[in-house]
Amino acid sequence: MSKRVYIQEVATRDGFQIESRFIPTADKIALIDQLSATGLAKIEVTSFTSPKAIPNLRDAEEVMRGIRRVPGVVYTVLVPNEKGCERALACGVDEINLVMSASDTHGLANLRMTPEQSLAQFRAIIEATRGADVAINASLSTTFGCPFEGAVPEARVLALIQELLEIGVHGITLCDTTGMADPAQVERLCGEALRRWPEAVFTAHFHNTRGMGLANALAALNAGIDRFDASLGGLGGCPYAPGASGNICTEDLVHMFARMGLDTGVDLDHLLAVAGALPDLVGHEVPGAILRAGKADRRYPKPQWMSAQA
Amino acid sequence: MSKRVYIQEVATRDGFQIESRFIPTADKIALIDQLSATGLAKIEVTSFTSPKAIPNLRDAEEVMRGIRRVPGVVYTVLVPNEKGCERALACGVDEINLVMSASDTHGLANLRMTPEQSLAQFRAIIEATRGADVAINASLSTTFGCPFEGAVPEARVLALIQELLEIGVHGITLCDTTGMADPAQVERLCGEALRRWPEAVFTAHFHNTRGMGLANALAALNAGIDRFDASLGGLGGCPYAPGASGNICTEDLVHMFARMGLDTGVDLDHLLAVAGALPDLVGHEVPGAILRAGKADRRYPKPQWMSAQA
Repeated sequence: MSKRVYIQEVATRDGFQIESRFIPTADKIALIDQLSATGLAKIEVTSFTSPKAIPNLRDAEEVMRGIRRVPGVVYTVLVPNEKGCERALACGVDEINLVMSASDTHGLANLRMTPEQSLAQFRAIIEATRGADVAINASLSTTFGCPFEGAVPEARVLALIQELLEIGVHGITLCDTTGMADPAQVERLCGEALRRWPEAVFTAHFHNTRGMGLANALAALNAGIDRFDASLGGLGGCPYAPGASGNICTEDLVHMFARMGLDTGVDLDHLLAVAGALPDLVGHEVPGAILRAGKADRRYPKPQWMSAQA
Repeated sequence: MSKRVYIQEVATRDGFQIESRFIPTADKIALIDQLSATGLAKIEVTSFTSPKAIPNLRDAEEVMRGIRRVPGVVYTVLVPNEKGCERALACGVDEINLVMSASDTHGLANLRMTPEQSLAQFRAIIEATRGADVAINASLSTTFGCPFEGAVPEARVLALIQELLEIGVHGITLCDTTGMADPAQVERLCGEALRRWPEAVFTAHFHNTRGMGLANALAALNAGIDRFDASLGGLGGCPYAPGASGNICTEDLVHMFARMGLDTGVDLDHLLAVAGALPDLVGHEVPGAILRAGKADRRYPKPQWMSAQA
């Protein structure tokens, strides 16, 4: 029996939030409904952030309430604060995803909070979910490096994981926010986290900013990670590296894992059909490689002159 | 002491041969001379093929004779037949690189020879090099899959390696010609080759057609491979997948390995400076990620408002 890996889609949140144009609500709902049928384990639907902060996701309630929820798929949403948590719970989400940074400068720049302030806020949010049937995930940004500070000490990352688990977080996503991770670091840090907390649910979240996205996913897999965030078409990006690739591409990741004989749960052809509509939806090309090159099992006809001779 | 890996540049042969325009001879020579100073272990300078078959490399003699050869760098050239071998030897190359395919259909389509016919020709070429101080490398195309036939049996690949070693080839390059390899296959096949022939010199040659190039390089490294072909800027491509990425990008590979703590021998900043001139030289953007995003140790200034508050 082949090893199971869980693919978690983030395009409609992590991708759409930085698009230059608002994706119409009906299109978001239609896309998520299509994604729900492909075998993905989890979909990050939207973000319950302030509509002023992220206008592209100002339709969070409509989207979350408009989608058809398929049993077995976890519908998660990003929640930046208690207000967002209230809104998310009112929509009956399966999971809320809290975000903090492992580095002070990135936390302050991106969230206006140090890691300690984020943890305090998380405690309040988790308190507010008491009694609600909702899972709590925490995404730890800059786990593998900070674009302002550089290396983030692994001891600090491990201490933050410990604190997150202590305050009642169920799952932790180790995020390579700006594509700084390398495979040796990934294997070491993910391996250490899994050794220390074998019962915890870890997700790896990589960006392909420096071309290492799938290599890092492979390294995480080798370390024992079995849950991976990815973004359809490779949507998403990094404000610090204009023009660079963003999140690793879901269909490229599924393709690699499937070729390796892993059970992704995902129907790749179905996923590719959904991904194929993305460029029209967002109004630009997307970085995904399989959309361009086709799957590795694609066959080409022999050259004409060979057939003519046969 | 960190593990040594050897980086072998193929842009001026594998890349330039499919460019839509002829790169002026003086520019080729200048580029190779710059590359020679970066710490690369080997440079595939050109191809001694028929000028009619590959007009872009019709200046093979001028280039090979015009470059400044740095001691310690191996200057290799592709040699398709005995005529090409004569021309290469006349230029005093360090190594000739013979190319054959592991699959019948690709061999016939690309070289008009089956693997068996290629082996017979190799014997004749090797015979012709008797007494010459030249190393013999053989590149085995479609080692990880054939775009016409699909999977190539690993037993066939291993049998061909055995034959190549028996006829006097010194080094063997395992080529993922059209980007079909996946990391599990790479680790398995490279591992098996190294187990069977621990004294042989293997190179891994990957394409990034389906986004797996660096993941495959990582898998090969994990299997014990320490020599890697790559192409500056990611030049090169695949006639079967127009628009898809070609060879893995040298500076992206060096960057990944350096981040992992490996000793590549290459001065990455120097290499990036050389790569930065490529788009002007070839007249189009190149796929390399580090050229676009900068190295992972790149630091960004804090947002203005944070500095203003300080």
